[in-house]
Amino acid sequence: MKEPDFRGKARRAVAECRRIAKMSEEPRRTTRRFLTPPVREVHALLRDRMETLGMTVAIDAAGNLHGKSQPDSAEGNLVIGSHIDTVPDAGAFDGVLGVTLALELVELAQERKLKLPIEVIAFSEEEGVRFGVPFLGSRAVAGRFDAALLELRDQDGVTLGDAIRTFGLDPARIAEAEIGESVLGFLEIHIEQGPVLEAEGLSVAAVSSIAGQSRFTVKFMGHANHAGTTPMNLRHDALAGAAEWIGEVEEFAMRTDGLVATVGRADVEPNAGNVIPGVVTLGFEVRHAQDEKRKEAETAMLDRARAIAGRRNLRIDVQCQMDQPAVPMDERLTAYLMESMESLGSTSQVIASGAGHDAMVMASRVPAAMLFLRSPGGISHHPDENVRDEDVEIALRVGLRFVERLAAEFR
Amino acid sequence: MKEPDFRGKARRAVAECRRIAKMSEEPRRTTRRFLTPPVREVHALLRDRMETLGMTVAIDAAGNLHGKSQPDSAEGNLVIGSHIDTVPDAGAFDGVLGVTLALELVELAQERKLKLPIEVIAFSEEEGVRFGVPFLGSRAVAGRFDAALLELRDQDGVTLGDAIRTFGLDPARIAEAEIGESVLGFLEIHIEQGPVLEAEGLSVAAVSSIAGQSRFTVKFMGHANHAGTTPMNLRHDALAGAAEWIGEVEEFAMRTDGLVATVGRADVEPNAGNVIPGVVTLGFEVRHAQDEKRKEAETAMLDRARAIAGRRNLRIDVQCQMDQPAVPMDERLTAYLMESMESLGSTSQVIASGAGHDAMVMASRVPAAMLFLRSPGGISHHPDENVRDEDVEIALRVGLRFVERLAAEFR
Repeated sequence: MKEPDFRGKARRAVAECRRIAKMSEEPRRTTRRFLTPPVREVHALLRDRMETLGMTVAIDAAGNLHGKSQPDSAEGNLVIGSHIDTVPDAGAFDGVLGVTLALELVELAQERKLKLPIEVIAFSEEEGVRFGVPFLGSRAVAGRFDAALLELRDQDGVTLGDAIRTFGLDPARIAEAEIGESVLGFLEIHIEQGPVLEAEGLSVAAVSSIAGQSRFTVKFMGHANHAGTTPMNLRHDALAGAAEWIGEVEEFAMRTDGLVATVGRADVEPNAGNVIPGVVTLGFEVRHAQDEKRKEAETAMLDRARAIAGRRNLRIDVQCQMDQPAVPMDERLTAYLMESMESLGSTSQVIASGAGHDAMVMASRVPAAMLFLRSPGGISHHPDENVRDEDVEIALRVGLRFVERLAAEFR
Repeated sequence: MKEPDFRGKARRAVAECRRIAKMSEEPRRTTRRFLTPPVREVHALLRDRMETLGMTVAIDAAGNLHGKSQPDSAEGNLVIGSHIDTVPDAGAFDGVLGVTLALELVELAQERKLKLPIEVIAFSEEEGVRFGVPFLGSRAVAGRFDAALLELRDQDGVTLGDAIRTFGLDPARIAEAEIGESVLGFLEIHIEQGPVLEAEGLSVAAVSSIAGQSRFTVKFMGHANHAGTTPMNLRHDALAGAAEWIGEVEEFAMRTDGLVATVGRADVEPNAGNVIPGVVTLGFEVRHAQDEKRKEAETAMLDRARAIAGRRNLRIDVQCQMDQPAVPMDERLTAYLMESMESLGSTSQVIASGAGHDAMVMASRVPAAMLFLRSPGGISHHPDENVRDEDVEIALRVGLRFVERLAAEFR
């Protein structure tokens, strides 16, 4: 059996991402929100490619593009895909690479004459930029799309329902986007968007789970006062209290394996150089692949915030904004990814994903697995976002072994 | 000799402050910026009072109201005063109390038949609210008014020169506002605007000096990154670095006598809950009555900022915005205030003023002294700003002794 041209296919997948990055709402930057005009160009390019591969193409009512390599079979099929929307001023690979690689896997499966039907989905929305709610595409495919979402408005006041209609689709038919009972599993290939694989010298890794996430608003309240006339020992400085806690959050997270804790937002009142800060509002978030560890950590850190406030005679208010459990990837499919890496002589490793992905939503409906590719410099959501050709080639090799493994079961 | 009615006069001085507080640019709040319409009402009230006391009244070209108890004498005269402008939504006593008490001192001197001529000045501007530059009134009286200031514009685009003309005055004559060679000294009575006297259980204290002041912008620069996908050990979190330094600033100032150091402003970029802060810009200020101690402290603290940034692989940028030396009050006049307190059986104490005052500007031209009154709760620049009647009465008693002491020298 002739060795497939993995290198050529990897390069083509990357080149297509770069071509698609030019399909944008804005000149000279990549910004492609849910069902905006450049999405039509992306659909045209992908449809062309799918049809060349002999696939049957359709767009569901949530704007997801589907290509099927063979008609649905009662014996099952595999879904591979990712999203084609982007953040503002994005890179070329977040989401899109998972779609172009899915098409290369279809071609590889055809070259290998595998019988397993593959459906490729280019999800319409994952980033949550246009309507403030993410995963609109995969929610519809997983049968988790709440019709109330259609009333959401974008910054121009356009409802989600109207955006769908303007694109020529019928929002009343979103329920029909749900995948059928025959789906054996879902595979998403995605850039890591973080620095872990690079730091460990790995091209790819399987994802064990999508980390759970808690978000809080933590408000420290003291007394604003004259910075010149109030001696140090008579102050109730909200920022000094907040700063002490930020230090403890960092220290706690540093010594807790797999935990990330971030104070990403700080709003100071009155925020004048010569006034002692009266109120500081912090945005605080905690993520861990194990919910129990995450809850333990958030409790310990918030207790510390209360203790610091108490000692400093500050008042404190803590509001929980989000408490999203971790979503484990399917054990069997993840084991197949690991075996695929091992059979290629690669180091097989699983890492937790700190960010949410379509695979998280799909996991609520079908067995789901994810393969991460190294992100050079850990850079993502930025025009400098990149991938290395050799990593893309390895991802294709691992992906093909994975498809072969499932196809073998399929007979 | 009949004991003067200190209590009655103290109450009248307080009542006049409350009456003047109603003379405002805004309904239901006290806001009275430089030469705005309510200033005419204040002038009318003070002029009436001055004329009742037989004083000669004049307004100089910088809008300062002057009342002379006797014609200028070659043998010298004493100037007593403070300012009548306010911050927005102000209290009733900041500045104004120093003017109403000056008039009570004139009446007391008359009752005692003291020969020392007293000039009362109600300075037109001290807060720097309308044109962004403070001390406009006392600059003119001290002969330190730079004509370039006339080009400053307020938020409506009106120049300082036009504001003066609109009030019916001639900005070309500001140089004439400078006080003559005969002035023996300047006394300002002012609320402390801080919590020190209250904490020490004192009604009044002499001011040793106006603290010097340094202001800096300190910018910590790291890398903004995804809060979910970037492990703790691979972060360059600008806010974590800034927070560590804020803690050290507080600790350093706590253990340095007479030093206040404040981080009053913090601007975080991008300031999103799920993004590791890339840049944090802090407003940092340091005050001390001794310039050498202030410079030592600022150097030590900024060195710590650089060390923290270095250890964390953050870049740092430090810009000095202000470096204003301390202004000592006149030793002889301050000693007279101390003797006056002691002769009344009060604890005599000097404290440094953390805030600037007209006396700071006047000290560049004539010997100047300041008497602080206790600020209940340390509250100022707020409608809750207050004074205790008994403290005002003690201030009047101390003030009269001070005037008597100078009058005795005067013969």
